[in-house]
Parts: sequence; C-alpha cells; structure tokens
Amino acid sequence: MTKRIRAAIVGATGYTGAELARLLLGHPNVELTVLVGASKAGQPVERVLPSLAGIVRGEVEAFDADRIASRADVAFCGLPHGASAPIVKELRARGVIVFDLSADFRLVDRAVHREWYGDDHAPELAKSAVYGMPELHRDALRTADLVAVPGCYPTATILPLAPLFAKGLVEEGPVIVDAKSGVSGAGRAPSERTHFSETTEGFRAYKIAGAHRHTPEIEQEISRVGARDVRIVFTPHLVPMTRGILSTSYLRVKPGVDAARCTAEARAFFEGSPSVFVHDAGACPDTLWVRGSNRAHVSYALDARTGFVIAQGAIDNLVKGASGQALQCMNVRFGLPEGTGLAMPAAWP
Amino acid sequence: MTKRIRAAIVGATGYTGAELARLLLGHPNVELTVLVGASKAGQPVERVLPSLAGIVRGEVEAFDADRIASRADVAFCGLPHGASAPIVKELRARGVIVFDLSADFRLVDRAVHREWYGDDHAPELAKSAVYGMPELHRDALRTADLVAVPGCYPTATILPLAPLFAKGLVEEGPVIVDAKSGVSGAGRAPSERTHFSETTEGFRAYKIAGAHRHTPEIEQEISRVGARDVRIVFTPHLVPMTRGILSTSYLRVKPGVDAARCTAEARAFFEGSPSVFVHDAGACPDTLWVRGSNRAHVSYALDARTGFVIAQGAIDNLVKGASGQALQCMNVRFGLPEGTGLAMPAAWP
Amino acid sequence: MTKRIRAAIVGATGYTGAELARLLLGHPNVELTVLVGASKAGQPVERVLPSLAGIVRGEVEAFDADRIASRADVAFCGLPHGASAPIVKELRARGVIVFDLSADFRLVDRAVHREWYGDDHAPELAKSAVYGMPELHRDALRTADLVAVPGCYPTATILPLAPLFAKGLVEEGPVIVDAKSGVSGAGRAPSERTHFSETTEGFRAYKIAGAHRHTPEIEQEISRVGARDVRIVFTPHLVPMTRGILSTSYLRVKPGVDAARCTAEARAFFEGSPSVFVHDAGACPDTLWVRGSNRAHVSYALDARTGFVIAQGAIDNLVKGASGQALQCMNVRFGLPEGTGLAMPAAWP
Amino acid sequence: MTKRIRAAIVGATGYTGAELARLLLGHPNVELTVLVGASKAGQPVERVLPSLAGIVRGEVEAFDADRIASRADVAFCGLPHGASAPIVKELRARGVIVFDLSADFRLVDRAVHREWYGDDHAPELAKSAVYGMPELHRDALRTADLVAVPGCYPTATILPLAPLFAKGLVEEGPVIVDAKSGVSGAGRAPSERTHFSETTEGFRAYKIAGAHRHTPEIEQEISRVGARDVRIVFTPHLVPMTRGILSTSYLRVKPGVDAARCTAEARAFFEGSPSVFVHDAGACPDTLWVRGSNRAHVSYALDARTGFVIAQGAIDNLVKGASGQALQCMNVRFGLPEGTGLAMPAAWP
Repeated sequence: MTKRIRAAIVGATGYTGAELARLLLGHPNVELTVLVGASKAGQPVERVLPSLAGIVRGEVEAFDADRIASRADVAFCGLPHGASAPIVKELRARGVIVFDLSADFRLVDRAVHREWYGDDHAPELAKSAVYGMPELHRDALRTADLVAVPGCYPTATILPLAPLFAKGLVEEGPVIVDAKSGVSGAGRAPSERTHFSETTEGFRAYKIAGAHRHTPEIEQEISRVGARDVRIVFTPHLVPMTRGILSTSYLRVKPGVDAARCTAEARAFFEGSPSVFVHDAGACPDTLWVRGSNRAHVSYALDARTGFVIAQGAIDNLVKGASGQALQCMNVRFGLPEGTGLAMPAAWP
Repeated sequence: MTKRIRAAIVGATGYTGAELARLLLGHPNVELTVLVGASKAGQPVERVLPSLAGIVRGEVEAFDADRIASRADVAFCGLPHGASAPIVKELRARGVIVFDLSADFRLVDRAVHREWYGDDHAPELAKSAVYGMPELHRDALRTADLVAVPGCYPTATILPLAPLFAKGLVEEGPVIVDAKSGVSGAGRAPSERTHFSETTEGFRAYKIAGAHRHTPEIEQEISRVGARDVRIVFTPHLVPMTRGILSTSYLRVKPGVDAARCTAEARAFFEGSPSVFVHDAGACPDTLWVRGSNRAHVSYALDARTGFVIAQGAIDNLVKGASGQALQCMNVRFGLPEGTGLAMPAAWP
Repeated sequence: MTKRIRAAIVGATGYTGAELARLLLGHPNVELTVLVGASKAGQPVERVLPSLAGIVRGEVEAFDADRIASRADVAFCGLPHGASAPIVKELRARGVIVFDLSADFRLVDRAVHREWYGDDHAPELAKSAVYGMPELHRDALRTADLVAVPGCYPTATILPLAPLFAKGLVEEGPVIVDAKSGVSGAGRAPSERTHFSETTEGFRAYKIAGAHRHTPEIEQEISRVGARDVRIVFTPHLVPMTRGILSTSYLRVKPGVDAARCTAEARAFFEGSPSVFVHDAGACPDTLWVRGSNRAHVSYALDARTGFVIAQGAIDNLVKGASGQALQCMNVRFGLPEGTGLAMPAAWP
Repeated sequence: MTKRIRAAIVGATGYTGAELARLLLGHPNVELTVLVGASKAGQPVERVLPSLAGIVRGEVEAFDADRIASRADVAFCGLPHGASAPIVKELRARGVIVFDLSADFRLVDRAVHREWYGDDHAPELAKSAVYGMPELHRDALRTADLVAVPGCYPTATILPLAPLFAKGLVEEGPVIVDAKSGVSGAGRAPSERTHFSETTEGFRAYKIAGAHRHTPEIEQEISRVGARDVRIVFTPHLVPMTRGILSTSYLRVKPGVDAARCTAEARAFFEGSPSVFVHDAGACPDTLWVRGSNRAHVSYALDARTGFVIAQGAIDNLVKGASGQALQCMNVRFGLPEGTGLAMPAAWP
C-alpha cells in the first residue's frame, strides 16, 4: 500500500485553502497535518472554515517553516502573488515539496513576469518550477519539487486551445478569449466589487484590454504548444454565481478544418487524461456540470458563415482551476493514479 | 395638453407584456385600455400578472380585432414570431398603429427572413415596417404605422457598433459578438433550460455558430449603417440572473483609431438620444446599472497589444431590449419627447 | 397646480439614498436639489450612483445645513442611527421638514430607545416625531415636521398584524415573527456577512432571540394599536436576493376567528390605503410581486389543526420598507394624493 | 475487506437520483451497477445526467425487477410517492434490500397515511419498513430490508427537536416550524413555480396551514421520541437557491431550561452520530456550511424575553435530506462505519 503523504496547507483560510482542505481530507493517500493562516492564527478551524465544524479540530496556525517541514512532506500554498515566493523559498530550503497556487512561479520568462507583476521575489527558484497542468506537462511534473499551479482562467482557456495549436490547425493572428468567471475567483476579502447586492443580478467585464495578469500565462502556454508566438485579446467577466469559469475562444482555423476535426484531435490529445471530457462537436458545456469536481469540459463548433472556430472550456475555478489541479499534480509527482481523490462527479444540480 | 393615447397590449401575459403594462401605466399620455392574452383569457389580471394586484382590475381578454380597434389607437404586440403577423395584419386593416415586438417584420430582405425563419406570413405588410430603434431610424419612425421593435441582443450590440461603422472606423472582416443575457429573455414558458435548479450557479452558451436568429438582424443594421456587407460571429450565453444583456464585441479598427476616438464619435452619434449613455473610454458597464430602466450604457476600449477594439453595450433586455424601446418608438411616432414615461433610472441595486 | 417641493437627500450614497433619488426624480411635484454624501463628497454623482449616469450631473456634496435650508424645503435623511440625530437637529433648527430613515426617532419611550441603542442624541426632538407609517398615523403625519420612517422589518410585520390587534382578534401571549430579508437591508458597506460567495446559495438567521433592534419598534406599534402590551419573538433571516422582505407571523386568535374574518377586517382597515393589497385568505404573497414598488401584500391563513393564524406581509425593503414609505409620508404631509409618484407596479419579473 | 455491495438506482434521472449516483460512485464498498429511469430509458447516461459525462458510460435502463435482482444487492428508489410502492414490492419480492426515498412507507399509522396521501398501495409491506433516520432508529436499521428514507423538511426539523422532546424539556402545546428550502426540493420537472425568472430574487411560502405532506411525518417522529402527541404548525418557504434547508422551530420550554441545557442534551443525544454537529448556544448555522455534504448543523437559543427556545437545523436537502441519508442507512444496515463514503465536508463556498 502507498505510504501516506503528510500535507500542509499554507493560506488555509481563503477559498482555495478551504477547497484544498476538502479535497485533501477525501484523498486516500494523504494526511492533512497543518493548516496555516497568518491572519487568523490561533482561531479554531471550525470558526474560520465553518464547513469543517465537527470534522477538523484544532486551531489555525501561524507560519513556521521548521514546524511544517517536520510535520509535512508537501505544502500547498494558497497565498497572494508576491506573498507566496518568500514562503515557498523557506519551505523548499527545508526540502518540502511545494504546490504553489500563486502566480509567482508560473511565467518562465522572468522579464515578462516583472513586466506584469512589477517584481520578482525568487528568480532563481522560478527556474526549477514546473507549470502544473498535467495535461501539458505530465512528464516534467513527475520529478518536480516546485509546481506552479496555473490560474483559473488559463486552465479553462488553454485546455480547449492546446490541441488545436499542437496540431497546427490555427491560422496566424490574435485569438479572442472571452471568459466568464464566478465570484469566488475574487477571493474571500470583502469588497464593493463582490458585495452581494451589487453583484447578483448584474453582469460586467473587468480588467479588459490587456489589464488582466492571466494574459501572459495563457500566451506562454499556447505559444509553447503551438511553437510560435501567439497573442490573445483577453476579456474576463464576472458572473453572478460562486463557482465556475466558461472560456469562449474565437480563432480562425486553416482551410478544411472543421469542428469534427478539432474534436477528434482534442480526444486524441487528452487520451489518458482523467479530468478532461471532450463533448461532441457543437455542444455547449455548462459550468454547472463540473461544479465541485476536478473536471474540464471542452467543445468545438465551426461558424461556417465566417470560418471561425468557437472553442469552449468549462471548469470549476476552485477545483480544476486551483485546488483540485494542485492535487492532480501531487498525484503525478508521487506516482499515484492521476485521478486519485479527484474522481467524484460534480454535485449537480 | 397632449391628448391621451389609448393603448392595447396583445400578448399581455408574457414578460414583455407585463413590462409593457408597467411602463404604459406610468406613461402620462397613455391610457391602457385592453389586455389581451389568448391562453389566459377570462382570468383576473391580478392572477396572471401578480404585480398588478390591486392596480389593474378586470380580466385578461381574448383577441378581437374589432373590439381593440374601437378601444385603442395603438397596439403593442408581444407574441412569438409567426403568431404575430396575422394579428398585426388584422389590426393594421382596422387602422390601429402597431408596435410589434416579434421578429416578423424586422428583416427588410424577406429572402433572408425566410432563410432564418422558414416562412413569411405578411411579406406585403413587411414593406411598410420601420425598424424600431429610434437612435438609427428616428425620422422614419415619425410616420410609421407599423414598427418592428428590435430584438434584445440586436439592441445591445448595434448601439455600440453603429457609431464606429457609421464613421468608417472599422477594418474589413467579421465582427466577433460575444453576448450574455439574463434568463427572462427566454420567456415565461417553463422549460428544462430555464428551470431554476439547472440555471442558477451555472453559465453556458447556446445556439452558437450561426444558429441564433438575432444574427441577421444585427448584420442588417450594421451593414446598413456601415454601407457595406458585414458578417458577425454571434455567441449568446445565458447568465444566472433575470434581466440584463451585456454584449461584448471585438473588431479591428483602422490605424490610428483609439478608444478615445470611438468614444467621441459615439457621443456625437448619440447626441440628443435620451436613452444612451456613453462611458469614458475603458469603462466596463454593468447590466445592474440599467436594470428596470430604458437606458443603454455603451463603452469602448482598445487592446493596444493586438489592435482590437472591445465595444460593450449593456441594457435591460425587457426594457430597452423590448417593451421600453417600443414605448420610445411610440413617443417618436406621436411627437412626444422621446423619453416621456421612460426617464426613471434603474432600480439599483 | 401644486407648487414644486424642493428636496435634499442626506446620505445619498447608500442604497436607501439611491432609491430616494430614483423615486424623487420620478415624482411630479418634487425637484431634487441636493445630494449629500459625506464620505464621497466631491465625487461625480454618476461615479457614486452608476444608475444615475447621464441623468444627474454634478457632484455629491458635503453636509452644510445652511446650504440645504436655502435650497430645500424637505430633507430625506438616510444615515445610520446615532449619526442621524445631530444632522436632523440642525436641519429642523433651520425649518427644514425632515423625513428621517434612521432609528433615532422611532421609539416613543426613550427609555426603551436607550435600552436598545445605548444612547439618545435628541430626546427633546424625539417628542415631536411622528412614526411614518401612513396606514397607522395618517392624521398625525399631515402636520408632522419630523417623520421617523419605520424600519423595513417593522413595516412588513406591522401591516398584517395591525388589523387583527385593532379589532381585538388575538389571544394573549407572545407573537412569533419569523422574517426573511434580502441582502440590501444590510446596506452598502462590504462585509463578510454580505460577501457574494458566502451569501448566495446559503440561508441563515442572525441577531435572533431578542438581539435585533427592530424588535421594540414592532412591539411599540402593535401594542399601541392593540391597546395592550404585546411581546414578540423576532427571528430575522438573510435571503440570497437583493430586495424583499417576507414576514411570517404566528398568533393564536380568539375562538371563531378564521382567515376570512382576518381578511375582511384587514380590507376594511386598509380601505383608502393605496399601497396595501390584501390577498384572498390562504394566499402566499411573493416578494417578487412587489419588487421595486411601494406596495405591501398581506395575507392570512388559519391552521385549523392548531388554531394558529399565519399572517404574512411582503414588501420591497428599500421602497415600502424605506425610501418609498418616506415619500408616501411626504405626500401626506403636503396634502398630495398619498400614492403620487409611487403608483408604478413592481418590475416583474 | 468488506465485500462489494452492488447497487441499483431506480429513478436515476431526477435530482435525488443524480445525487445517489454521485455518492455511490464515491463509496469505497459499493459498485453502482444499474441506473433505471423509465422516462429516459435508452438514452446515454451522459446526456441525462451531464455531470456524469466521461464517468459513467452506457444507457439509462427501463425498470425490470428480475434484471435488477440479478445485478444488485440493494436498490435506492427515488420515485414519486404512489409510483414507488409497486416497484418496491417487486424488488422486495425478489430479495433486494430497498432504500426508498418516497413517502410511501414513512408513516407507521396507515390511516394517517391515507388521510394525507389518499391511498395506500402496500399496507402490508409498510409494516416492515423502518424510518431511515439513523440518529433515531439506528438499531432497527441494522436488520431492516425496507428503509423509508425521511423527507428533507422532516430531517432538518426532527434532528434539532428530538433531543428536547426525548428529555422532556418541552411544554405542552403546538410547535411552530418555519422552514425554508432551496428549489431542488421541488424536483427536476419544469414548472411555473420553479421557473428561474419567477424564482430568483423572490421569496414566498407555499402549502401552508396544514397543507404540506411532511407535517404528519414530523409529528410522528417527535411524538414518538417525546412519548406524547405533538402537533406542529408547519410553514415551508422557497428560497432562491438550489440546495439547503433551514428549519427554525419555536417551542416553549419548561422552567429553568436554557439554551446551554438544550445544547448539552443535544450533544449527548448525538454522541456517536457522525453526521450531526451541535453548535454552541446562540449560533446561527448557514445552509451554505453543509452544501453538498451529509452533515446536519443544529443549534439552540433562548429568547429570554418570552421564554421560547428557537431550535435550528440546517442540511443539504439532497444529501442529508435524501440521498446521503439513504447511504447512511445502507452503511448501518451492512455494518459499515456509519459515515463511510459520506465524510467529505461541504464544498464551501
């Protein structure tokens, strides 16, 4: 039998932290040993994460790299960018394998990172990071000790686009990515932007026209898989729901390419990937169908009147877009079946 | 003082009918005299439209063209396409001025109408119809006796695009229109697609890749104003909220055109239009800001990295996208100030 | 023709302020002259209240009693309790007629006020205040220069209960009041309690067992109308929607009293009250039916198995539960028809 | 190692069926072998239950008792009342152990059943049924071959009330039960009552004053545990959310009983029950804290001003209120730890 993996969550009091706790508690090979949450250290876990009342006893702890290293083999870090890098550095220095959900290590080109984030707290460490999308980096992840888990928008966008670029089906030119996210992606800190009364029954875009920091991450991975420099027009929107991202991309395909071809290539590309389901051509996946699960639904349609392919990807931003994907990477890293602890379907409806 | 306009609503029991009733009751120059709803004829109004309890007495009536002609100067028809044309024919034959909210008379090229709708119940009558968007057809509306009130998606999409095409700022090629609608646009008939438990907390596209019948309507008006043949890629989505449409369009603009220029042209274009507000460049209008009002919020941003302009339009689909716009047309037709009875801001939040 | 009433809103940047602006702009006898919002003074109105973009120009102002007195006949104050009293004092000293939406002047027994609020900023002034529910205090309101507009829960609860107590139909003993409110009642300030992701798809009670400050207000009015001391068990709940309150009360009625009797008495009681609609016995009003309107829906049912009457009241908390009721009081005060500017039905759905 | 239990779901295409599939797929001792859904027999599972796309292959089957008996040890029946009894009869006749989620076997007194349901399709079989609430009937469930899984409202209501009645803390007289449910409790069939646009942003009661069929079920269990005849006033409400029930009960307690005493008794009562969490006195559980989990949160508060105790229970209606509770019963029946496959916390937020 597989040996237990002892796991710590750093940044356990936010939404990705709560979701990590839920998933780690259900994972058959993991023992959740530490919950760190700086701002709420000393408070009972059940007060901070009410869904754990009666399930996890004890208190949220302050960060202490030595204590974590002594009690955990792996750490999942769900901290804001900038705050994560120094913490990760300390954990890596003590040999803890880190799955980092922040943006600090995702961009390979550190000049691009500095351009979009204005800083670079750990350029050396960044070199060793592997982008944590098993469907694209499975081999590298098997030996990775620092995994940069992708952003939620990139996951929903890259998955449907990757097979088309990998096979060279796409014409030159920018890709339009019109993405829509549930509100949990904005995190747990209250703000006007996420105040219930000004969020429900409304719909709006935000950080448009090159302002959203997930842009370079999507471009990096699509360019890599397409072996050419790809630019995207990225427009995120806020949907009045808690979880879910639908990414709708528009791209010109080469002559003769139709939705059936895209679908077939995607099915081949994701062969053996337990988290991705490719719908029949023309289908429209609903984020509700993946809510609470680590699944990605992908589909393709051809607008015959204009020659554009519409590529859609639907995920739960907190699971396949964050915490679930982190566990999926852990499974790959530890030689477990990739879907271990992640097989449950969505809680539908 | 302006003489009272006696108004009938045909199809009063659906959502656009309910909204027509609300707006007509608040209009200072209108007397609402008849509520027709075939399937619920004989039922008390307050049972069929519970928001009118204590406000409108009496019963929903069956359709009777003669009775309507004797009691109403104008009729607002909120019927499904195909069902509307024969009704409108009867009313027009009796001299009733008709504001038709169906799709039956919107398309000027009846071959295109037949292609998308499979029939044409009143090709002769269609010739006399004026497309009911005052911002584009104000003069023709002053004498129109049959007004084809636009669809909700076309309204949200055409308004931001029209000024750019009118001024020749747009490059050749298809326009990507990624639109998102609240659920009330699907009407009052229950269906799996609009069942609460499968609609809330989910987000999905539908009728994509040239399948949605609002496509030719948008193309007709943009092509007309742009004086060239424009094709769109149109992707509607369903947002888990009742009211509101946000239409996000992507278009390549001519060299040197930026968001400030688009904004300035739009402000000039909508000078004197009481229902349209053009935001400063880069703003992101929220459908919540127009909920319950006849207002359209429009904005422009330039993605400098790719040269695409993102043009957004936000409306309430039941008001500016349907019933409110119908009243706005009535105001123009009767020489009233265009915003009469339509001035109230959104009920925010 | 009635002379224009010049109106100021103090506390214009919160939700009741926004709703006051919407309603005052639509009132035929009012001119909205001043918008005061201390924390956002100097900002453009359209930035602070986006629904007013293109409708109200100018800036939010700082509070200045002299300036208000010179430009307004009446002031509507939508400030937190404690903050309101000193402001009202200044305005009253300058002869401005005040409709105060805070709790500062609602309780007649100032000892009770101090017990629940811990202070009393204007005990003298409080003596002159009239409780602003026209259905109960119409005559006193005709000459009131300071109106204490009721809380939202009290409005939804008192309206259905008052006729039963007025007619002596109720047995001795406490009344159970189980009330449910939309989130806008919590105001505009972001908080964990009203953060979208922790509010939607959840339902909970709060401030139960005598902790909610609307308790004494309900008891005061019911005791007054019933001419005896009535205690209530009050349990407020938060509903994942923006607007609306449903108050469900349970009370033992005297032998022989049934729902038909309650309904008949209520219809007699509310004769001539344009804002209250009494449903047939056994009906269940929906808050959606009054959303955005100044209407209250009331109904009664008898649980024959136990002898309890279930009395329900449904309102929009921001309209009949706050800003609309304030205008209704103003209409009474100025001798206008009570429903002036408040006649529009709910924006349903 | 425990031998695999082969399980069939009859009525797999509704919401409780979908939830059963989700939970059974995640249960370590169960093999899901048959999905029966009469109206959708022959359709691919992934079309009928889109959350199972890529997880469960094959088709939904028609009902065939022999085939089920040959392939399943247990059957979970999620059919409407009346439709369930004949099916259960056939399955029991073939030795299949049945967990029935309908109301057909819940009421012990069949005269009461006939009074509320108008029929009794299997009076003999009903005698052998055990009410499927492990917290109250654990011993009887160990040998039960027919389990009548409780309704959702009864589960949320009985759990907080049972300890108080078991200990004799409650005064004579009816108990007020004001309950609020998410919309999924109304099932999957579209209807006006559950149409999105008329459900979201609204709140209403329904089937009040003795009209809801869960009333006798609650009375049966409370009377049994309290060893006296208890009547309830039961008022269900519809909350604009998919999942969750909060039941708020009001009861007079004996002199000297306070919330701390109620809390202590409940903690003793639920000792060893893995699904129930008793909050500290005065807490207000949120349905969001249990969404997607088999957990029940319970709490007590005393309204010192009136002597009423407010007892609250929060569950997910589809899990602890239906499918999860059915599995919990199966665990008890098969000697498995009661929480097997049901330990995962809520997917919060």
